[in-house]
Amino acid sequence: MPHTAAINRRIILNRRPHGAPTPADFGLQDAAPPVPQAGQLLLRTLYLSLDPYMRGRMSDAPSYAAPVALGATMLGATVARVDTSLHPDYAEGELVLSFNGWQDYALSDGTGLRKLGGLKQPSTALGVLGMPGFTAYMGLLDIGQPKPGETVVVAAASGAVGSVVGQVAKIKGCRVVGIAGGADKCRYVVDELGFDACIDHRAADFAQQLAAACARGIDVYFENVGGAVFDAVLPLLNTGARVPLCGMIADYNATELPAGPDRLRLLTRTLLTKRIRMQGFIIFDDYGHRYGEFLAQMSAWVGDGKIKFREDIVEGLENAPQAFIGLLEGKNFGKLVVHVANA
Amino acid sequence: MPHTAAINRRIILNRRPHGAPTPADFGLQDAAPPVPQAGQLLLRTLYLSLDPYMRGRMSDAPSYAAPVALGATMLGATVARVDTSLHPDYAEGELVLSFNGWQDYALSDGTGLRKLGGLKQPSTALGVLGMPGFTAYMGLLDIGQPKPGETVVVAAASGAVGSVVGQVAKIKGCRVVGIAGGADKCRYVVDELGFDACIDHRAADFAQQLAAACARGIDVYFENVGGAVFDAVLPLLNTGARVPLCGMIADYNATELPAGPDRLRLLTRTLLTKRIRMQGFIIFDDYGHRYGEFLAQMSAWVGDGKIKFREDIVEGLENAPQAFIGLLEGKNFGKLVVHVANA
Repeated sequence: MPHTAAINRRIILNRRPHGAPTPADFGLQDAAPPVPQAGQLLLRTLYLSLDPYMRGRMSDAPSYAAPVALGATMLGATVARVDTSLHPDYAEGELVLSFNGWQDYALSDGTGLRKLGGLKQPSTALGVLGMPGFTAYMGLLDIGQPKPGETVVVAAASGAVGSVVGQVAKIKGCRVVGIAGGADKCRYVVDELGFDACIDHRAADFAQQLAAACARGIDVYFENVGGAVFDAVLPLLNTGARVPLCGMIADYNATELPAGPDRLRLLTRTLLTKRIRMQGFIIFDDYGHRYGEFLAQMSAWVGDGKIKFREDIVEGLENAPQAFIGLLEGKNFGKLVVHVANA
Repeated sequence: MPHTAAINRRIILNRRPHGAPTPADFGLQDAAPPVPQAGQLLLRTLYLSLDPYMRGRMSDAPSYAAPVALGATMLGATVARVDTSLHPDYAEGELVLSFNGWQDYALSDGTGLRKLGGLKQPSTALGVLGMPGFTAYMGLLDIGQPKPGETVVVAAASGAVGSVVGQVAKIKGCRVVGIAGGADKCRYVVDELGFDACIDHRAADFAQQLAAACARGIDVYFENVGGAVFDAVLPLLNTGARVPLCGMIADYNATELPAGPDRLRLLTRTLLTKRIRMQGFIIFDDYGHRYGEFLAQMSAWVGDGKIKFREDIVEGLENAPQAFIGLLEGKNFGKLVVHVANA
């Protein structure tokens, strides 16, 4: 349902969630679109990316980035069209990657924009050719350092990051085991994406199935879910394993630490005795200077059909909160993007 | 009390400790020295190194190396004199670094021996110029990657590893905060070794003192103790910190995990949001090929007086068990070495 009237709908953070976000944590407000001044652009949001990291921004717990203020517009990456340009470098109608947040319109002075002129499918700038694909690429290759014949495990395997991690690991000659929620996703991961196996984390014997699929242990575990998946992975990690830490969606809604025993020392001892490298990274902080390298390589792979991707498109900005709540529950199937307006 | 009669005293693992080792876990046996065959050497132990890793070898829990068998001689690095040589490359009377274990005599076919001909103080081959110094050097420089002006923290700061970590970090231009047990050790660490500060981990307000000494947070924490020290370090780690995992002596005698809450996810989340690299290493497995580089650099530093060291020499093989028990309690002051026989 594209929105055409000159109203800026924006979705704000109404209150900080306690545990899983609910619709009441968000608010929808109407306002007049902002008016660009000299040197500024008015951008019209076409696609809004929904990503797990946004849950962190809704909380005021210490993290790597400032939280969204109460009453402020939810933040997020967007594909936008230049609606009005008072900036010499941008023409009306051009498509750009921007950071409009969850709203119809936003101003920009050009800082941080990227032109998407040549992109056949602009929404991919939010997925396989954007932050999620970049995250998968650098975390796997720079921290994970997969070698041919090694076993690589990644969860949320049909999602925006996991799907790229596994396919790049296949290109690098690894055995790749995915983890996903439900038979449909698992089938897609094996049949379409070419993983060697995919385990349904909802299965009662998930840990046993994972161990059976990783008969030679795990050399690289790309961590993007945490929770019970990590618990099943930990005893399977091989000596010399690498664990890039990208996200822990299973834990984002947790309001307190789980009951004991305290396994902190179990983890550090495992890292020590197995000489494991575990490393967190924040993609643009750590690797922003390598975006060009990524984009060239990934565009070529996508063009050659070596990397496939799937988008889960939700219609209408007003449906973003419910879609985001579903994302944290694993309800999406592919990169979750909100279609806000037509180009 | 050098032992001169032709008896081979050996200290065996009598039973596996439950928690902290006790004297009854060890046994002392007398036997005739072994007789070398063609191509073999009989080695006379002069100095025996006692190191925290030996606690791990007394247990049969999964680890990076096989445990000592019940009834077998305790293992350990030694400085030895060639007593009898039926090997063309070794002459009687030569000093070598060997792995005799806790006994007076051992056979060797030359595998893994290193000649110590030029070494002024042979026991340093077990400390500052041996495995502990090498561990400190590679863990700090290769994983810790300290930069000038950064804050480096190391515990067991008067010990064989910690003392070298801190002094190398000072050479690299860092602010160095040590942690040690008791006022004497702390004074030595600051006054003799040149650390910027040293905190007594026995102080009731240890965590507060550590935080005060690390006003700009911690960039490198060289982990060689675990336990309460790690708990105090964790909230002080800076974004981008590096944590080489060398050992966790405080936890070696633990028989079960501590009570909850389960902080495993607190740790992984901290590593993620602060982009921290935590990495275990086993010195000769990971860095054996760089021993020559280490030895040249460290010998030069020791010769120039830039790296100081302290040995805690215990007289008599029969006192090794009690000395080792004391090591796990932090009773030694400097590198713990047993003097078994005179050169």
